[in-house]
Amino acid sequence: MLDIISYKEAFFKCIDNVKPTDLYKNIYVENALGEFLAEDIVAKRNAPVFNNSAMDGFGFKKSDNTKLKVIKTIYAGDKYENFEIKDDECVRIMTGAKVPENIDTVIPIEKCKEVNENYIVIPEIKKGANIRLKGEEIKKGEVLVKKGEEITPEIVALLASQGIVNVKIFVKPKIAIISTGNELKEPWEMADEEEIYNVNSYSLHALLKSKGFDSDVMGIVPDTLEKSMEFIKKLKDKYDVIITTGGISFGDADFIYKAFLKNSLKPFFHGIMVKPGRPTMAGVMDDTFVFAMPGNPLSCYLNTFALAVPVLRKMSGAGKFFYDFVYAKNQKAFKINAKKDHTALGKLENGEWKVFGNYKYGSGMLSPLFNSNSLVIINQGKDIVDEGVILKVIPFNTDFCESNDFFNDLF
Amino acid sequence: MLDIISYKEAFFKCIDNVKPTDLYKNIYVENALGEFLAEDIVAKRNAPVFNNSAMDGFGFKKSDNTKLKVIKTIYAGDKYENFEIKDDECVRIMTGAKVPENIDTVIPIEKCKEVNENYIVIPEIKKGANIRLKGEEIKKGEVLVKKGEEITPEIVALLASQGIVNVKIFVKPKIAIISTGNELKEPWEMADEEEIYNVNSYSLHALLKSKGFDSDVMGIVPDTLEKSMEFIKKLKDKYDVIITTGGISFGDADFIYKAFLKNSLKPFFHGIMVKPGRPTMAGVMDDTFVFAMPGNPLSCYLNTFALAVPVLRKMSGAGKFFYDFVYAKNQKAFKINAKKDHTALGKLENGEWKVFGNYKYGSGMLSPLFNSNSLVIINQGKDIVDEGVILKVIPFNTDFCESNDFFNDLF
Repeated sequence: MLDIISYKEAFFKCIDNVKPTDLYKNIYVENALGEFLAEDIVAKRNAPVFNNSAMDGFGFKKSDNTKLKVIKTIYAGDKYENFEIKDDECVRIMTGAKVPENIDTVIPIEKCKEVNENYIVIPEIKKGANIRLKGEEIKKGEVLVKKGEEITPEIVALLASQGIVNVKIFVKPKIAIISTGNELKEPWEMADEEEIYNVNSYSLHALLKSKGFDSDVMGIVPDTLEKSMEFIKKLKDKYDVIITTGGISFGDADFIYKAFLKNSLKPFFHGIMVKPGRPTMAGVMDDTFVFAMPGNPLSCYLNTFALAVPVLRKMSGAGKFFYDFVYAKNQKAFKINAKKDHTALGKLENGEWKVFGNYKYGSGMLSPLFNSNSLVIINQGKDIVDEGVILKVIPFNTDFCESNDFFNDLF
Repeated sequence: MLDIISYKEAFFKCIDNVKPTDLYKNIYVENALGEFLAEDIVAKRNAPVFNNSAMDGFGFKKSDNTKLKVIKTIYAGDKYENFEIKDDECVRIMTGAKVPENIDTVIPIEKCKEVNENYIVIPEIKKGANIRLKGEEIKKGEVLVKKGEEITPEIVALLASQGIVNVKIFVKPKIAIISTGNELKEPWEMADEEEIYNVNSYSLHALLKSKGFDSDVMGIVPDTLEKSMEFIKKLKDKYDVIITTGGISFGDADFIYKAFLKNSLKPFFHGIMVKPGRPTMAGVMDDTFVFAMPGNPLSCYLNTFALAVPVLRKMSGAGKFFYDFVYAKNQKAFKINAKKDHTALGKLENGEWKVFGNYKYGSGMLSPLFNSNSLVIINQGKDIVDEGVILKVIPFNTDFCESNDFFNDLF
């Protein structure tokens, strides 16, 4: 029998036992949003690619002349041979247009003292003004984005600017989701008023999808130990991660744990001292990572969010796999059990956080979930979360970061 | 000639001129993540569906008896006929199992004074304890989720629990993205060292995709006024939204604006007093919403993020279309132009916000974008953003809310 451990310990047992993949594949940038880079992105070209004008204005070689003859107009995209320009001459030049080699300064139209068809009169201006120099932003050869970064729209912009259309990305894990509970009906099945639907398979599938992970919903596991052993054995060879829901509490119906054990599971823990979400197990079966989540929809969802998603990201080669958080003031005090850790749901709005329903909801409920937008994880030790205390709040749609500090100590 | 207006005015000119769609379609919940509900979700069933045990324990009819005979075990999912139970009897009952009609209280195993094969001894316990009552969370017929809500994984969970597999959602707008600039090369084309790639089409496509909107990249618009007029005319009938990039500044090459005008565009504004992002136009052409964004990749991206995305959400029937924000302390003072509004990029980390590169970057750069994770919009009026001032920060991946208050006044 394994010990019941704290939420923080459970988290680190999981995350420390994950090996990032070294499997990668090529993909067109168009389809790469949300994938993790399996290579550094190295600049193929300078940015800017040539000296160019930062303004619509006039370009000239800085001298003592203040009256300059306009000899030419250069538009963005114009290609031209080098040409001579005298100290009392200038060119009309548009934003982004290439600045001729012997021009070192640009003055915006609106700063000229006088602008005529053929000449302009300029005030004192600093040499080099309003010219973006070749390579001043990005130098050919420098590392722009590091291996492990998630491809965001901002990185897509960068890749396009570098003429990069195909990238190496890590292969994400194959994930199987299994429900237990032969009493459950699938949502599309006829059910009488007292029958219960299989929620967890679909809520986890959607949660993982929203975090960038595909998963296969395998339905409801067969109801005997022998059949589930066989079922798990078959999945083990095909999937990198198996997530089960239910059948893991310490009641009589707890057979999924046994079925895993018979498949050489090495569990990290069996039970977490947290409210809600105690009946949770994680471990490895050879190369397959296993999560046995609670059957209660709320705790099942929260533990998948808090424990499994970071594991899936690390497994996928992501450089950032810890939830980022924001600080927010606790709007209203609520009681907690000092001997347990807590995963509390609530609403983050205008910089304040308010727990759902005074934290008096049950783990079988769903309303706390769809009426909240964020999670607060509290370490055991105090029996109240005071009004006004600053909490670390994890929004459901938060980013990930490199340092893990999202646990709240209330001391 | 239209006036140059403030960022806040420009935002409201756009958002107030959008008509939400009334076009809806049916979709399986599996594919509905990120869509907007076109109907209220009404509870088809109670939750819980029957009185059930909140714990693994023993159920009985509350009386003065403290020693109770165990007559039966009830598991989750067990179906049974009503049976009689005497005051000195109890049933062993598992979490989630249906509580028999004449049982009103459950005691968890661990709270019993004594537990044997055939009887238990119980302490004083409140009548009704540890029983979740039918309908106490959700009552059949009540509205669970309102029309206009975005379908999140949490709502998928709710729909599964209600046995709902298909929902009505609003049809999202058809969006065309056009670049201008015949000098541009597409990212997959051969380009010499000094040629520039078309960044905007792909960065906007990726940005919109990350916000839940598909778009068609139409490539680079033909280079004459007549050809672009024809091109726009063709698109107008097929697309709800046209976003162009470039060709909108006040330089000589500004022909896209004219091409729109010749197609009966009614512009709301032509130019915003903001840094960066001044050359921006929005308006309507009959039923088609038009954004003409700047050609500079940075300002093009930011104005699409801040102005276009909320418009697209409102158009799609979303109830929430204003960016939510978090409060964060400004880590380091930076100078701004008091006569302009500002959209400043930076990093939000551990509750503090730091502007990128002292806010000295140019609008042609991309590094400010891919090195930032959030945006701060500042109304004109002050020439410095002081250290320590509390800012409203919009993370790139933020949610949306119903009230619009994300503009910073620094007074």
